[in-house]
Amino acid sequence: MAQPLVFILNGPNLNLLGRREPAIYGHDTLAAIEELCRRSGATLELEVDFRQSNHEGELVDWIHEAGDSAAGIILNGGALTHTSVALLDALKGVDLPAIEVHLSNIHRREEFRRHSYPAQGAVGVIAGFGPQSYALALVAMANLIAAQAPR
Amino acid sequence: MAQPLVFILNGPNLNLLGRREPAIYGHDTLAAIEELCRRSGATLELEVDFRQSNHEGELVDWIHEAGDSAAGIILNGGALTHTSVALLDALKGVDLPAIEVHLSNIHRREEFRRHSYPAQGAVGVIAGFGPQSYALALVAMANLIAAQAPR
Amino acid sequence: MAQPLVFILNGPNLNLLGRREPAIYGHDTLAAIEELCRRSGATLELEVDFRQSNHEGELVDWIHEAGDSAAGIILNGGALTHTSVALLDALKGVDLPAIEVHLSNIHRREEFRRHSYPAQGAVGVIAGFGPQSYALALVAMANLIAAQAPR
Amino acid sequence: MAQPLVFILNGPNLNLLGRREPAIYGHDTLAAIEELCRRSGATLELEVDFRQSNHEGELVDWIHEAGDSAAGIILNGGALTHTSVALLDALKGVDLPAIEVHLSNIHRREEFRRHSYPAQGAVGVIAGFGPQSYALALVAMANLIAAQAPR
Amino acid sequence: MAQPLVFILNGPNLNLLGRREPAIYGHDTLAAIEELCRRSGATLELEVDFRQSNHEGELVDWIHEAGDSAAGIILNGGALTHTSVALLDALKGVDLPAIEVHLSNIHRREEFRRHSYPAQGAVGVIAGFGPQSYALALVAMANLIAAQAPR
Amino acid sequence: MAQPLVFILNGPNLNLLGRREPAIYGHDTLAAIEELCRRSGATLELEVDFRQSNHEGELVDWIHEAGDSAAGIILNGGALTHTSVALLDALKGVDLPAIEVHLSNIHRREEFRRHSYPAQGAVGVIAGFGPQSYALALVAMANLIAAQAPR
Amino acid sequence: MAQPLVFILNGPNLNLLGRREPAIYGHDTLAAIEELCRRSGATLELEVDFRQSNHEGELVDWIHEAGDSAAGIILNGGALTHTSVALLDALKGVDLPAIEVHLSNIHRREEFRRHSYPAQGAVGVIAGFGPQSYALALVAMANLIAAQAPR
Amino acid sequence: MAQPLVFILNGPNLNLLGRREPAIYGHDTLAAIEELCRRSGATLELEVDFRQSNHEGELVDWIHEAGDSAAGIILNGGALTHTSVALLDALKGVDLPAIEVHLSNIHRREEFRRHSYPAQGAVGVIAGFGPQSYALALVAMANLIAAQAPR
Amino acid sequence: MAQPLVFILNGPNLNLLGRREPAIYGHDTLAAIEELCRRSGATLELEVDFRQSNHEGELVDWIHEAGDSAAGIILNGGALTHTSVALLDALKGVDLPAIEVHLSNIHRREEFRRHSYPAQGAVGVIAGFGPQSYALALVAMANLIAAQAPR
Amino acid sequence: MAQPLVFILNGPNLNLLGRREPAIYGHDTLAAIEELCRRSGATLELEVDFRQSNHEGELVDWIHEAGDSAAGIILNGGALTHTSVALLDALKGVDLPAIEVHLSNIHRREEFRRHSYPAQGAVGVIAGFGPQSYALALVAMANLIAAQAPR
Amino acid sequence: MAQPLVFILNGPNLNLLGRREPAIYGHDTLAAIEELCRRSGATLELEVDFRQSNHEGELVDWIHEAGDSAAGIILNGGALTHTSVALLDALKGVDLPAIEVHLSNIHRREEFRRHSYPAQGAVGVIAGFGPQSYALALVAMANLIAAQAPR
Amino acid sequence: MAQPLVFILNGPNLNLLGRREPAIYGHDTLAAIEELCRRSGATLELEVDFRQSNHEGELVDWIHEAGDSAAGIILNGGALTHTSVALLDALKGVDLPAIEVHLSNIHRREEFRRHSYPAQGAVGVIAGFGPQSYALALVAMANLIAAQAPR
Repeated sequence: MAQPLVFILNGPNLNLLGRREPAIYGHDTLAAIEELCRRSGATLELEVDFRQSNHEGELVDWIHEAGDSAAGIILNGGALTHTSVALLDALKGVDLPAIEVHLSNIHRREEFRRHSYPAQGAVGVIAGFGPQSYALALVAMANLIAAQAPR
Repeated sequence: MAQPLVFILNGPNLNLLGRREPAIYGHDTLAAIEELCRRSGATLELEVDFRQSNHEGELVDWIHEAGDSAAGIILNGGALTHTSVALLDALKGVDLPAIEVHLSNIHRREEFRRHSYPAQGAVGVIAGFGPQSYALALVAMANLIAAQAPR
Repeated sequence: MAQPLVFILNGPNLNLLGRREPAIYGHDTLAAIEELCRRSGATLELEVDFRQSNHEGELVDWIHEAGDSAAGIILNGGALTHTSVALLDALKGVDLPAIEVHLSNIHRREEFRRHSYPAQGAVGVIAGFGPQSYALALVAMANLIAAQAPR
Repeated sequence: MAQPLVFILNGPNLNLLGRREPAIYGHDTLAAIEELCRRSGATLELEVDFRQSNHEGELVDWIHEAGDSAAGIILNGGALTHTSVALLDALKGVDLPAIEVHLSNIHRREEFRRHSYPAQGAVGVIAGFGPQSYALALVAMANLIAAQAPR
Repeated sequence: MAQPLVFILNGPNLNLLGRREPAIYGHDTLAAIEELCRRSGATLELEVDFRQSNHEGELVDWIHEAGDSAAGIILNGGALTHTSVALLDALKGVDLPAIEVHLSNIHRREEFRRHSYPAQGAVGVIAGFGPQSYALALVAMANLIAAQAPR
Repeated sequence: MAQPLVFILNGPNLNLLGRREPAIYGHDTLAAIEELCRRSGATLELEVDFRQSNHEGELVDWIHEAGDSAAGIILNGGALTHTSVALLDALKGVDLPAIEVHLSNIHRREEFRRHSYPAQGAVGVIAGFGPQSYALALVAMANLIAAQAPR
Repeated sequence: MAQPLVFILNGPNLNLLGRREPAIYGHDTLAAIEELCRRSGATLELEVDFRQSNHEGELVDWIHEAGDSAAGIILNGGALTHTSVALLDALKGVDLPAIEVHLSNIHRREEFRRHSYPAQGAVGVIAGFGPQSYALALVAMANLIAAQAPR
Repeated sequence: MAQPLVFILNGPNLNLLGRREPAIYGHDTLAAIEELCRRSGATLELEVDFRQSNHEGELVDWIHEAGDSAAGIILNGGALTHTSVALLDALKGVDLPAIEVHLSNIHRREEFRRHSYPAQGAVGVIAGFGPQSYALALVAMANLIAAQAPR
Repeated sequence: MAQPLVFILNGPNLNLLGRREPAIYGHDTLAAIEELCRRSGATLELEVDFRQSNHEGELVDWIHEAGDSAAGIILNGGALTHTSVALLDALKGVDLPAIEVHLSNIHRREEFRRHSYPAQGAVGVIAGFGPQSYALALVAMANLIAAQAPR
Repeated sequence: MAQPLVFILNGPNLNLLGRREPAIYGHDTLAAIEELCRRSGATLELEVDFRQSNHEGELVDWIHEAGDSAAGIILNGGALTHTSVALLDALKGVDLPAIEVHLSNIHRREEFRRHSYPAQGAVGVIAGFGPQSYALALVAMANLIAAQAPR
Repeated sequence: MAQPLVFILNGPNLNLLGRREPAIYGHDTLAAIEELCRRSGATLELEVDFRQSNHEGELVDWIHEAGDSAAGIILNGGALTHTSVALLDALKGVDLPAIEVHLSNIHRREEFRRHSYPAQGAVGVIAGFGPQSYALALVAMANLIAAQAPR
Repeated sequence: MAQPLVFILNGPNLNLLGRREPAIYGHDTLAAIEELCRRSGATLELEVDFRQSNHEGELVDWIHEAGDSAAGIILNGGALTHTSVALLDALKGVDLPAIEVHLSNIHRREEFRRHSYPAQGAVGVIAGFGPQSYALALVAMANLIAAQAPR
């Protein structure tokens, strides 16, 4: 039987990881995080589709696509986290469990980074653990998908 | 003589209509609304160009395109209604009557959904009547275009 | 069979229409709007009871009266739109579809005019089309009443 | 000797009680509450003058009338509670103990219903007990009047 | 030739003057102020129509009436000063010079009393001089009317 | 049969009653209020457990204890009223009717004292009647318990 | 006997009157206003000391000087009206009646011009009558001084 | 060698879990969560000290105690999350990695629950996964402790 | 004759002094500050009772105890400074001079640390001088007590 | 040696220049501004890559591209200036000097246009000089690049 | 023919340049900036009158003086930028182009430094380029003056 | 060896001390405070230069002068405390320890008096002890200077 598919979607500027403000975001590249997610997914028997875009509209498109083909969404909206009602509405518009992740702890940063629209459409939030935030989210997602599975 | 052309532009997530939060947005699909608009347009002798995009930039492009080829714009900005100064500036940048429509009554929803930027560049707003909001907007647009026509 | 009765209620200062700030409110008098509504109502097979008062209490009384005898309410609360919780509670207290109308587009005016209490108790809002706002509201009301009718 | 007279004044929409939003306001009619107040008043040896108006001005007039003829005021300002400085000034303008009552617990409702102007001119507030709020207020008023009585 | 007519309109609770919070409003009754205005008006060759109402709607009606028959309006809106957009719209709706007066200096009172809607539709404001506020307003009104007179 | 038990819980500084700011809180001691509550309880056939603590945590503990052994809670949270989400959550966490009481009328005091967290978890609020606030709350509680009783 | 002395103090930029934004401030120069004040003062048997400074500190000095030698202060603080706590404290620090005047109606201008610190230390405010604001203030001041005079 | 010790501290009302608002907090008891943590800890080779208190001061004491004897802190501050600067300062005062956990997703609840003081002193936050939030936090903590260990 | 007794009360986390964020709070331990206070007290002929608690309730208890046995209170509320209305009410509830002290200058720290509730119940505030803040407060307290002493 | 390359990036609606609200933005087209920039660049020995997009994501992509190939960025974010955290993060993510330019003086426009996110990631801002804003920015950029050059 | 005269006015504390917070303001002295301006002015055929004052009133005086004798004003208001309505009114009161300059980028500093009153009366703003901000402003001013010159 | 010199600078209206609002500021004159400071300074072996000005600019000048010749600054900014960024920048611009003093406890006064700009540039604040605030500040200053002295 096919493994459940999880979309891991990354928003603006996350493609710069590793050279962007390493004091905040660390030295890992996005490719390294993707590799970490693939390995974690393999262990959890989840298929991972890992993507990044600087375009809000493309992220919305991908969430819709996930609604048709995936079992769950892990979203790091990047800067759009704080401003995008469209991402929130996209998450609410598809019938899938979603988890918001952040590399940094947004509660320790500028005031405007403490507010999240998409989190209002997610099951939960994991923030502050660097690349491990993604790995933890995959564990959580495996639990969520298992809990929904017919028994 | 060619019929006046009206662009009907739909923002993020409206392509999900019919399965997205039907308690709020109803069971009609966007295709059904397009069909309703075409029929209404035919009755009113208006040509209708009906589009949807999840990309703010594409909506801005289309408003500019309308400025070159259309007689009016009906805009349901979706989630961008509450955050997009760019849509407001686009409406103000073209010399066309514009009408903002919403399926739901934004005054009965979350506080952040009660504010609209594009409405500040529109002639008027029609909200809360489901797909009929579009049909009413077409009637209003026919009046606006007629009022501008040389007599 | 009697036609459904629609109350069209107008709030403070709307009796001045035609001479009050015509740059904002236009040159039509309230009598002209009433005449427009009667003609539209006749076409839509709706009976229209058109009233104006400068007294919040009288408007509340009339909404209650509509609850006993009418099939729907169209309300232009005028300045009370922005301050009257009583009008909101009146609309919520009667079991009728209500539509809020405005001659001007309140999103283009002073900040304090962008907030509406009664709209929170209405099905929808139509604003910015001058006297046509009323005609559009009657079309919308006819649809709402038809949708409620036994079939 | 004549019994002390207590005005019990009810604001907008309270005449709808029993059919208005019963999930919030309960199934008792205002007439039933008046009857309850009369019985409670009889027990407490208080004469009760029970009135309702949808007009802020009439409520102000009645508070002034109370100032000339009554020993205390019990006020349920309804929606005017949240907006009427005039009711506050009226209470402060007459030399009588006043009690604000509410059927519902305003702390559990919309933010704008948590603020009261008239309460700033009252001895105290009783809210959330349905019609019993009135009965409790009459007990409290009897105490207040007794405390003022010459001994 | 008839003397210019000035409406002097007083809002809620001003009928209580002389016994209402004398520490703030002084010991003069409204009748005494009316008498002062009549004497000042006689000196200035202005006819005075002095009225008081606790009803916002009646004050709006009177401003409209002034628009038909008077040369100017002096308004002490009382508590409505701080909440009534309807009074502002009424002043803006008639083509007459208007002056807002207050007995007390609203800048020394509660925060919510420092804001005035009607003042935004008036030529000017005179506040804090007790009954003399009215007399000063009549002098100012005589000047305003004279400045408008054909020469 | 045992009488229903009502916990009457008093928050920080209420043990100072009688000597603490008597202009606001009156001259009665907390012991006098306890005595009043016992007498009122006896009349109403309610057993009263009257306690005071300056510790938020102890008040939370007692609310939990009430959840196990009592039929209702009367809470004067004192200063914690304005800041304690924990008291609100405790009230919502136990399945008992609760009433918030205050000696003074919090609407006439500093702005920060007008907000109550626990009131959002209570049936109703009684404030401003000095020790009588407690006696009134006991009457209200007797009604609430009677309304729940099997018949 | 010497006539009472009134300081008339003018703040920043008022020396530009007549050429500064005449649409708001009119075409009269400050010299013309001084002349008007002298004539009005002569009629009212008040000696007038008319000054202008662009320096907050100098205005504070002059208010102190008035405290030693004058019977009253008329202050047009100009732009300092909206920001200077020092002027407020100066007025409160001297034992003299003070009147705040403005040429324009500050309620019709930018939001930040509607707030006045010095007005909180004044008897009253007169605003919106152009140079006549000063003349009216002198009349009001004559009344205030007369009311204080030994009889 | 002894296993690293992790304090898992639970704030007010968490002892009610299982019967408190199960729609929000689920049906698991705190004892079940403790058992889950012990099992997870055993797998991760972490010793777990699991405590609950309704007293802010006791939680502060325990954080200090952790500073002396533990390798990390997992904190569910309950209602104190939103109000306690003391918990934040305690976390910042000890030299240990800390993780904030919540059973529910605070971004989907009342506005006042979206703000966290202790999170500003934590490495990261995990919220919304019910008891799994704790298990995920233990995994994250194991990583944090391992990263600190001498190699 | 016994020396006047001064309670010096320290709030949450002050027991960590010396190792907690030394860049802000310095390297002195609380024991060193107590020793400094004892020496200063001896010089000033004041008896010092120096205590620390992480519990708001215990601090309230101690303020009450001071009301019975001490001549003055010096309070460093720590984090409770910014949130505790209970400490404010406790200070206002006892008839003693109180002084608020802080080691750091709260005006240079996070916005939420600039507000103090207890300071509203204190004679004065001394902040920013490290342990010397306490010594200065003892000098000030000696003056306050001397000024109250019978002469 | 190759001339340093400067990206000049223009956001939404700037392609409409010359016909969009000329009272605010002037009559120059974007092509004219590009030509001006090319001529200025030639003089300053800077190569200019001049682009415009209505898509936030494309602007982010271009900023990243600049990070790989250019020596500096001049950004007119248009409407995105006021809402885009993504542009700010992009500027902070690349190691290049950036300058924000505006044709109009944003301090003289609507309140929401006075705030800029990208400016927080720029060296400086030049606003209000029409097309000259770009020319001035190029001069400033030449200085910044020269200051970075090895000497 | 005489060269156009430009006043370059510097506000409080700018005389400290070179030793005041060099991390923010750089190491150049105000004398060095004056010298830079003179040289730039010479190149641009502008006469420069360079002044500094710590007195708001003196700056206002100088702006007035410029109105009589200069062709333009370059203003670095220093700390007064954020608080002085008087400087704004002075700029609006004279009929000259004005440019606001800042050494630092005010968008990267404390919130209260992001707001500018004088900028609302200026043609444009240049901020963040250190002393080059002045040189750029002189170039911009030369353009503005040339554009006004008769041709 | 010369004694260290301390500037004690007093802002607007402090010259009125003794007759200005004695209920708030006490009956001591500024001369008496100066005398107190001289005596305290003598004891502490500090030379005192005590000045007062109503001019913000003069206070800024004096702070600069202190930067050249003094060892410390004690500042009572009076009303400028709440509004003057210039005083803050002046303190930050000179390399000297500064202490802010107030006669009254600003936490017990109007909201706008609780905020201080200069305190953000000071070592600490002493407020509420009347003239003793100055004496305490001199003690604190002696400590600060001693701590800086070479040993």
